[in-house]
Amino acid sequence: MNLILTLRILGALLICLSGTLLLPIPFSLFYKDGAWTAFLFSALISLIIGSLLFYRCQSRKDMSVREGFAIVTFGWSFFALFGALPYLLSGAITAPIDAIFETMSGFTTTGSTILTQIEGFPPSLLFWRALTHWMGGMGIIVLSLAILPMLGVGGMQLFKAEVPGPTADRLKPRIQDTATLLWGVYLLLTVLETFLLMLGGMSFFDAICHAFATLATGGFSTRDASVAAYDSAYIDGIITLFMFLAGVNFTLHFQALRGRLRDFHRNEEFRCYLGITLFATLLLLIFNWSGGIYQSFGDNLRYSLFQVCSILTTTGFGTADYELWPVITQYILVLLMFIGGCAGSTGGGIKVARVLLLFKHAQVQLFRLIHPRAVRLVKLGTRPVDREVIHAILGFFALFIGVFVTASLLMAACGMDLISGGAAVVACLSNIGPGLGTVGPTDNYAHIPVLGKSVLIFCMLMGRLELFTVLVLFFPSFWRK
Amino acid sequence: MNLILTLRILGALLICLSGTLLLPIPFSLFYKDGAWTAFLFSALISLIIGSLLFYRCQSRKDMSVREGFAIVTFGWSFFALFGALPYLLSGAITAPIDAIFETMSGFTTTGSTILTQIEGFPPSLLFWRALTHWMGGMGIIVLSLAILPMLGVGGMQLFKAEVPGPTADRLKPRIQDTATLLWGVYLLLTVLETFLLMLGGMSFFDAICHAFATLATGGFSTRDASVAAYDSAYIDGIITLFMFLAGVNFTLHFQALRGRLRDFHRNEEFRCYLGITLFATLLLLIFNWSGGIYQSFGDNLRYSLFQVCSILTTTGFGTADYELWPVITQYILVLLMFIGGCAGSTGGGIKVARVLLLFKHAQVQLFRLIHPRAVRLVKLGTRPVDREVIHAILGFFALFIGVFVTASLLMAACGMDLISGGAAVVACLSNIGPGLGTVGPTDNYAHIPVLGKSVLIFCMLMGRLELFTVLVLFFPSFWRK
Repeated sequence: MNLILTLRILGALLICLSGTLLLPIPFSLFYKDGAWTAFLFSALISLIIGSLLFYRCQSRKDMSVREGFAIVTFGWSFFALFGALPYLLSGAITAPIDAIFETMSGFTTTGSTILTQIEGFPPSLLFWRALTHWMGGMGIIVLSLAILPMLGVGGMQLFKAEVPGPTADRLKPRIQDTATLLWGVYLLLTVLETFLLMLGGMSFFDAICHAFATLATGGFSTRDASVAAYDSAYIDGIITLFMFLAGVNFTLHFQALRGRLRDFHRNEEFRCYLGITLFATLLLLIFNWSGGIYQSFGDNLRYSLFQVCSILTTTGFGTADYELWPVITQYILVLLMFIGGCAGSTGGGIKVARVLLLFKHAQVQLFRLIHPRAVRLVKLGTRPVDREVIHAILGFFALFIGVFVTASLLMAACGMDLISGGAAVVACLSNIGPGLGTVGPTDNYAHIPVLGKSVLIFCMLMGRLELFTVLVLFFPSFWRK
Repeated sequence: MNLILTLRILGALLICLSGTLLLPIPFSLFYKDGAWTAFLFSALISLIIGSLLFYRCQSRKDMSVREGFAIVTFGWSFFALFGALPYLLSGAITAPIDAIFETMSGFTTTGSTILTQIEGFPPSLLFWRALTHWMGGMGIIVLSLAILPMLGVGGMQLFKAEVPGPTADRLKPRIQDTATLLWGVYLLLTVLETFLLMLGGMSFFDAICHAFATLATGGFSTRDASVAAYDSAYIDGIITLFMFLAGVNFTLHFQALRGRLRDFHRNEEFRCYLGITLFATLLLLIFNWSGGIYQSFGDNLRYSLFQVCSILTTTGFGTADYELWPVITQYILVLLMFIGGCAGSTGGGIKVARVLLLFKHAQVQLFRLIHPRAVRLVKLGTRPVDREVIHAILGFFALFIGVFVTASLLMAACGMDLISGGAAVVACLSNIGPGLGTVGPTDNYAHIPVLGKSVLIFCMLMGRLELFTVLVLFFPSFWRK
């Protein structure tokens, strides 16, 4: 591990962060919430420490895979630490653990909040909250389509962005090109949603904050009641659509913009994602209808589809308190929590493709029992999937369950009940936001003790970075050379 | 699939069953409960149908792997159906689904019951209930150590009984020899426990029924309050010891009787099993102590250790209502439910060795990220584990989770709450018995609707036969030739 080089790059990242910390200042001045000094000081602190790291740590060596892991993990952690400064310096959040929780929840696009009264919160800080989502989402697109496949994490090799770009072998230009193209799509969708939400009567401020939170599949809202506060079928519809789009592999959007709409249909993961969305919505429609929850079909469809998209894409916006729905619908939503969006989207969770491949693997195992001499490969679309990738995905699945179990145990040790503790962990590990029980869609995470919050912060980080990236740092041999 | 041969062997199995159906008659006559005619008629029906199948279905072909799957799955199902006759014919249980539930629970050594008042139940039927456990346990030892490894199910190849026997290649004598040796151990332990329980003041009837249920890791008791009814530290201790022993690979017991006690220490799965038992007990001791549940250390140890062994070995006896314990202890017990006993024991669940290998696999995957060119094999003890075995085990794990999720969904559709429905499924799938919520240690399964009971019956069967054996029958290509 080349620690010097790692620190240098982390320094550069902090310098970038200091720039973004200035963005909420216009909002602060416009709304006169007085938080602008907090942003200025936070930016200065980040700039100074970032510059110190960048200029003091000089290294002539090239980057290797190990530095990649360290930079990604520590980069996200640094952002959560320094991004928490405005909350603390403005005094809007007093406990450091709460500020870090909120920022980590932002950058990991989780959307779990410890805020109890969002409406009274300084607007510039609400903008910063939404901006952390949006920047986190940007990071994830590049991470999942360019960096993680290269690091070989959890079978992500499968989902490498096949975006036309220079064929040069060198790493940097390729990542930069991929990033630029995909971020273009991301930006375009954000602008489009902001515009459409404003058409529905939202203020520019609310619209941009919600667009940030939607495209990043984050879920922070500017209202206590989340999207339900607007009580508009149009707004619900727009957000549902963009949540669904944000859960799709961004490479497909890019191809669609180039006119290759067929790629959506040809992509097996997308078909499966669409199928899960429709099937889950159908089940919810049936059970909410038979449970007498909604009077009209229109209302039932509006709320059921919204909640399915919100949970499956791991956004976490709410328009209905699903804890009042029949038990089976909650069960279905919990399942969706584990699945998550497509690989290469901003959504979290295990990812549709991994779940799909798991089932295919189990099926092949059954097939082999009947035909011991037959050779049958697991395929995704028309491409056979390498056995190493299957191995990595199965390892990811085992790790995901293992981490879920361990973290839930720690939540139970904090005195949380089985449902709330388990739901809090999966909501953070899958980067969703709301869970069940005391962390349900109408509650928040403020009441959880410090140990519990720390566990959840770590879960958000691990979930966002596909587990391996973080856990690999705990191997002693990682640090040896 | 050679259906004729399969039916012939199923006929032979039914003839055997008819013999065992006569065994409770002496108890019926002694206790004058009037159920002896029910047993006689049940034995006759089984004998007639069994003989018809055996003599009418003649086949000259040899057995292949496919018939193996069909015989195991249908054999267990036939036993559950015909073994339910005494309950129905005596009128002690009126609903057929309840009688089949109770019998399947017996033969799969699950121990979930639909009986609400055990104390008023005819003694000969209680003996039959315990006997179904004991016979099921016998079946499992041979199944897991000889038949499943041969069929290549779920990585069971690893746990083939390495018992000295004739080296002839032919299948039948080898299985018979293995069976005879291991059943000898099983019988010896049963006799020993019966004797020790009688020393503690139990009647011969109670002692033999509890010994049957312990060695099979079943859990049916002759009392409503289960083992708690005797309120004796001595009896609790004896049952704890024998539950622990029943959760160990029976090959190790056999080797121990030949003086090779070192094998216990050398077996990595056993060390892990012992470690889990001790660690879980330690955690329970701490949380029950800090929760103020037990006054004295002795009581705490007695009840905590009993419950850990009962759940981990998937026996399901109760001496304490763990639903009154702190939430975290319940969480720990739920985890133990998934793990289960050692492979080659009568215990159910995923099995200690599979869980161990899953973690080792995940660890190797992490290691490979740091050292992409290094070759590191997963080992169990000193033996490297074949990649095919790892593949099969990972497929088993994915299937287990998949079945758990699907079945829990169906339980929720029956109107059960999340905790009770999920706990009922894992309690049946892991062949434990009691779960949490409305199927907790002081409750029973009587209140569950017919659909729910059917799902649970199927879960017990799948769990007992390591999933693959049952699910393979649902492949259309299994039936083709």
